[in-house]
Amino acid sequence: MYSVTVRDHLMIAHSFKGDVFGPAQRLHGATYVIDVEFKRTALGENDIVVDIGRESDVLREILAELNYRNLDEVPEFASRNTTTEFLARVVFDRMAARIAAGALGPSARAMHSLRVTLHESHIAWAAFEATLVGAEGETVPAAVRRDA
Amino acid sequence: MYSVTVRDHLMIAHSFKGDVFGPAQRLHGATYVIDVEFKRTALGENDIVVDIGRESDVLREILAELNYRNLDEVPEFASRNTTTEFLARVVFDRMAARIAAGALGPSARAMHSLRVTLHESHIAWAAFEATLVGAEGETVPAAVRRDA
Amino acid sequence: MYSVTVRDHLMIAHSFKGDVFGPAQRLHGATYVIDVEFKRTALGENDIVVDIGRESDVLREILAELNYRNLDEVPEFASRNTTTEFLARVVFDRMAARIAAGALGPSARAMHSLRVTLHESHIAWAAFEATLVGAEGETVPAAVRRDA
Amino acid sequence: MYSVTVRDHLMIAHSFKGDVFGPAQRLHGATYVIDVEFKRTALGENDIVVDIGRESDVLREILAELNYRNLDEVPEFASRNTTTEFLARVVFDRMAARIAAGALGPSARAMHSLRVTLHESHIAWAAFEATLVGAEGETVPAAVRRDA
Amino acid sequence: MYSVTVRDHLMIAHSFKGDVFGPAQRLHGATYVIDVEFKRTALGENDIVVDIGRESDVLREILAELNYRNLDEVPEFASRNTTTEFLARVVFDRMAARIAAGALGPSARAMHSLRVTLHESHIAWAAFEATLVGAEGETVPAAVRRDA
Amino acid sequence: MYSVTVRDHLMIAHSFKGDVFGPAQRLHGATYVIDVEFKRTALGENDIVVDIGRESDVLREILAELNYRNLDEVPEFASRNTTTEFLARVVFDRMAARIAAGALGPSARAMHSLRVTLHESHIAWAAFEATLVGAEGETVPAAVRRDA
Repeated sequence: MYSVTVRDHLMIAHSFKGDVFGPAQRLHGATYVIDVEFKRTALGENDIVVDIGRESDVLREILAELNYRNLDEVPEFASRNTTTEFLARVVFDRMAARIAAGALGPSARAMHSLRVTLHESHIAWAAFEATLVGAEGETVPAAVRRDA
Repeated sequence: MYSVTVRDHLMIAHSFKGDVFGPAQRLHGATYVIDVEFKRTALGENDIVVDIGRESDVLREILAELNYRNLDEVPEFASRNTTTEFLARVVFDRMAARIAAGALGPSARAMHSLRVTLHESHIAWAAFEATLVGAEGETVPAAVRRDA
Repeated sequence: MYSVTVRDHLMIAHSFKGDVFGPAQRLHGATYVIDVEFKRTALGENDIVVDIGRESDVLREILAELNYRNLDEVPEFASRNTTTEFLARVVFDRMAARIAAGALGPSARAMHSLRVTLHESHIAWAAFEATLVGAEGETVPAAVRRDA
Repeated sequence: MYSVTVRDHLMIAHSFKGDVFGPAQRLHGATYVIDVEFKRTALGENDIVVDIGRESDVLREILAELNYRNLDEVPEFASRNTTTEFLARVVFDRMAARIAAGALGPSARAMHSLRVTLHESHIAWAAFEATLVGAEGETVPAAVRRDA
Repeated sequence: MYSVTVRDHLMIAHSFKGDVFGPAQRLHGATYVIDVEFKRTALGENDIVVDIGRESDVLREILAELNYRNLDEVPEFASRNTTTEFLARVVFDRMAARIAAGALGPSARAMHSLRVTLHESHIAWAAFEATLVGAEGETVPAAVRRDA
Repeated sequence: MYSVTVRDHLMIAHSFKGDVFGPAQRLHGATYVIDVEFKRTALGENDIVVDIGRESDVLREILAELNYRNLDEVPEFASRNTTTEFLARVVFDRMAARIAAGALGPSARAMHSLRVTLHESHIAWAAFEATLVGAEGETVPAAVRRDA
């Protein structure tokens, strides 16, 4: 299995609901250093897994939707805690949808799986990884992919 | 698959038995920077994989049993070489046993697997990873889990 | 010159005032990974620059005053932008005051200078460093120290 | 599953063929910081996965074949783009062949799989990972191993 | 003293002249991960050392002049070895000239000094640091600044 | 000022004397990741600060004297605590003596200063830095250099 990973980052405010979070129930924030790993069983044209420039641009677009925001005010997240692991899934879902829509080019639809890691500090990080349904040739909406 | 990882560290003395170890047969020591990754197929209550505060506390307790010690004097390790890979398994076993005993809360018993990585320097590290038997719902002693 | 550095972190929300900040004028947040470096011309008793345990505890106390907060609501920062460089100075001032007050022990008053670095992401960080007035033997309030 | 990883590095020149590479079609170069992870289901003799000294020496030999070279002039790579992911496979193949040939000792033939990661910068890296055919006991040429 | 640092990177090919360089006399290449630290004795308007967005853009422009090139073919470097320390000075000179020309805004002319660090691998890096002549208020060409 | 830094590491056992050390009074150990920074006001012959290969070799020799040892048994350290800051000075002294003796070549005697940093974990490190007496042209024994 081949993989290519790119790194970017995101700075947001949010608060958590639930006693388990202690002082993090207050409005605070985080820098997430984000790694997106694209996995594929064979190299595509040009001896690459994916066009790394396009990959970085698409990741930047996804992060721009969230960057410099108070996530408590994003309607989509209203009933949820935007924990590091939850946000890893959000970035995963948005990247998977873009791949299915062809934003990384037709050959990227042959991607086997994605792994999204969010580093919240030097001592804690979280990830979400899953196989893409219809991976390796078919084009299937990200919404129906199964967890690995 | 979701995962959450926490980092801590450990400072010990030890020596190795066997020609393969060269000068490391002498009494020396190491700092291990330790990452424990908890993996789970779905988010639990509160949109978390595990309570990261509790996770860090339990890891600290486990490391306190070994920290600032000469491992050559620990009866349990008497016939073994406490290599980095061996110690990764020791930390794994102790964390798995605590999860089975409920130290991370009842929902942590739904954990799918653990990965423990020990960094011994900037150029070498080792890990042990395994599925927890009875993962995802059942409560089974760590001692009977199978290697992945 | 000897130095000892300890690392910890801080998670806050804030917003900036001024066109120069672009989207960072919105409420957002950051994780700051914080390094505090203590510098001294000679080793003190016990062959140490400073008691590293106490140093870490005092840093944690200072960070607890700011951690998991919206800095826009802290009266002391009302007319300021809590930029990374500004916050480096805040942590510096609070650490210098504690040293002057003896929180790190009497010998820590012989400290020559401090450097506080705040990493806001993997691609940006800021620092504040200054000599302590009355360094090396005298006890002078941090408030009158000069910038280096 | 146990694993042991060692890190080394490589400095090469090359150019890429294909519009997708933009300015990287010009002759340029890279430092690759390289991690080779050896995976095994059980510890071998001496409580190790592999002799880490030998492992490092063999990796250094492999890298010496490529180090300080213009890869555009290596006949073996003539029709290919020596992308990061392609080179991860090259290092993988050469290490797998050496394991099969006994360079890491007879017990290393019981290795389950390898993962080779090449970091090309602080924001991008690529990897190749595969199970070794005949892993865990048999000695099979690397050339026939299947991708995982 | 306050400082703000930004990180970017550069990928080039080159060769060295002189027996001291051994195999690095052959055409090879490097990724340089580059940190530029801006130092100033007081915060400027908006509580910042420098506009970090502009700083990053100017650094990117400077690196674009060198990026994806064979430095052996750059006339300006014809009689020199483009070692890591030499290139740190090149980036320093170009940044100092841009500051003097106002590219970072008028207040950036009050910058005290710059430090440019180029990481060539995980085990080696080089830097060039100097005070800017006419620092703190005057506008003097970078060419006449003195080394610190 | 130019600088070049190389990184290596060291694994030792030791114990500390004094209540301030708490559990570290027991025999334990550490990995020190060691950075040695060579500073010089001008580039030497070949556009380098120092021959980086020789620099790395000499550092390795110095570390070999200490590596895989119990420092409690080294007569030279008998009355001292081999803290991280103390060991930074030991490595500094040995490197300075070798420079004075010509081990890095005659031009290395023009070195301005050295900085030795020992990382004991991901959250703590210590350093010793000093100007070399007779720096920049003269050859003076390291033993008489002054602290900066």
